[in-house]
Amino acid sequence: MGFKRKERIAIITKILVDNPNKIFRLQYFTDKFDSAKSTISEDIDIIKNLINEMQMGKIITIVGASGGVKYIPFLEKNEMKELLEDISTKLNEKSRLIPGGMVYALDILYNPNYLKKIAKIFSAYYYDKNIDYVLTVETKGIPLATMTAEVLNVPLVVVRDENKLTEGSTIGISYTSGSTGRVKTMYVSKNSIRKNSNILVIDDFLRLGGTSLGMQNIVKELDSVVVGMCFLIEIDNGKEKMIDDYIALIKMVENDDKKFDTSVNWETLNKI
Amino acid sequence: MGFKRKERIAIITKILVDNPNKIFRLQYFTDKFDSAKSTISEDIDIIKNLINEMQMGKIITIVGASGGVKYIPFLEKNEMKELLEDISTKLNEKSRLIPGGMVYALDILYNPNYLKKIAKIFSAYYYDKNIDYVLTVETKGIPLATMTAEVLNVPLVVVRDENKLTEGSTIGISYTSGSTGRVKTMYVSKNSIRKNSNILVIDDFLRLGGTSLGMQNIVKELDSVVVGMCFLIEIDNGKEKMIDDYIALIKMVENDDKKFDTSVNWETLNKI
Repeated sequence: MGFKRKERIAIITKILVDNPNKIFRLQYFTDKFDSAKSTISEDIDIIKNLINEMQMGKIITIVGASGGVKYIPFLEKNEMKELLEDISTKLNEKSRLIPGGMVYALDILYNPNYLKKIAKIFSAYYYDKNIDYVLTVETKGIPLATMTAEVLNVPLVVVRDENKLTEGSTIGISYTSGSTGRVKTMYVSKNSIRKNSNILVIDDFLRLGGTSLGMQNIVKELDSVVVGMCFLIEIDNGKEKMIDDYIALIKMVENDDKKFDTSVNWETLNKI
Repeated sequence: MGFKRKERIAIITKILVDNPNKIFRLQYFTDKFDSAKSTISEDIDIIKNLINEMQMGKIITIVGASGGVKYIPFLEKNEMKELLEDISTKLNEKSRLIPGGMVYALDILYNPNYLKKIAKIFSAYYYDKNIDYVLTVETKGIPLATMTAEVLNVPLVVVRDENKLTEGSTIGISYTSGSTGRVKTMYVSKNSIRKNSNILVIDDFLRLGGTSLGMQNIVKELDSVVVGMCFLIEIDNGKEKMIDDYIALIKMVENDDKKFDTSVNWETLNKI
């Protein structure tokens, strides 16, 4: 069956958007549509110009023998602004305060609409940094890390706070929890990360950074390196963080009365 | 700026595929393109016929005042077959056996490519069942549940095995773990589920179903109902399951020597 240009364009767009950061060779589409390479190249140029101009993401074409095309999800600037102001307003609601100096945020952390958009923001910083794995620690940050891994098209790795049979052989390291000051142990499956990998750490909250420092150390044990750390929310309680060089989209400043002033971290966002 | 039909089609396809199961009103597109309703309707018909004919998902148009269009992700039949045979073959590898009668599966459970495709299969059973939430229990099943929630466009809820401060007020129930026979407690945030909701339970492994039965009971405590349960893998060790009416895509039959024969559960797949 023959396809018209508008039909090929719809199908190519569908496949690219459905598979973020995956390279498709031109051959894949010439086979699918039984079309000439030049025809498919023109189709892709139309899609590329459109998506790029409308800031709906980035279509990149790679030339050469192993060349092809891939789609990199981005969030439009005004959508980013709207999203983070929405989250920030929600987190300021007094009804969210939990005794113990915490804020209820599960409705945000477990909402796929928010998660996908936040993941797209993280991707804007790291899509071209050759990330091999997204790493997080159980539990609340796993959905956000999953969506980030999907957007970047890399496997997810989850650090556990107990040694579980299903992990196979594990490596365990001790770390100091920033919030409680207690020494704990975290574990990761030895099989989960290849040597010499680039790791992106993703988590929901950054308090003092003890857990993140632990993740950096456990990654070192696996002969790999953390190239970036992204958090949705950072809590500023006046104490110095145990890590630096991280990205946090929203800042919660803790008051004397254990309440928070929440705002968007525009300084970080302007770096994209 | 004026858009040509092929350009509108690319952009509409991009938006629909990027937002599974979200209804977009025609108005959204007529505003975006400054086009007549009849023009956008024709664009959508072209996309709809294409995607539906190519079995790349389902585009549904809803007529009437609150009408619009949405994209439901499906997996093509041959892609489904290929995926599940691939997973089944991998799980049969002897190197995966972990002492204690377990099989290493994290590389599959944490791989976004697999997860998205598996989520699309689950969606084929439940996209028209008015699911309000996807529910899972920590930890290994969370990425799969996250992708299923994204595909169905509903919030995720995670049952915890400890009572955590960040959950706010919780409900806890006792249940018997099928694998260990021990009585444990599971917790869920009281704020996480509205009354009278339809819940889809998603998990990676089904052993005897004790945990799933617990999830059914905790959902009852929140005045809601479990309308379906989907698992990637079910383990058949000859014992009767504590739940019925579930879907499991892959079956692992345990031998006398604590090894497994793994195969695709074609009977279940043929029910789609």
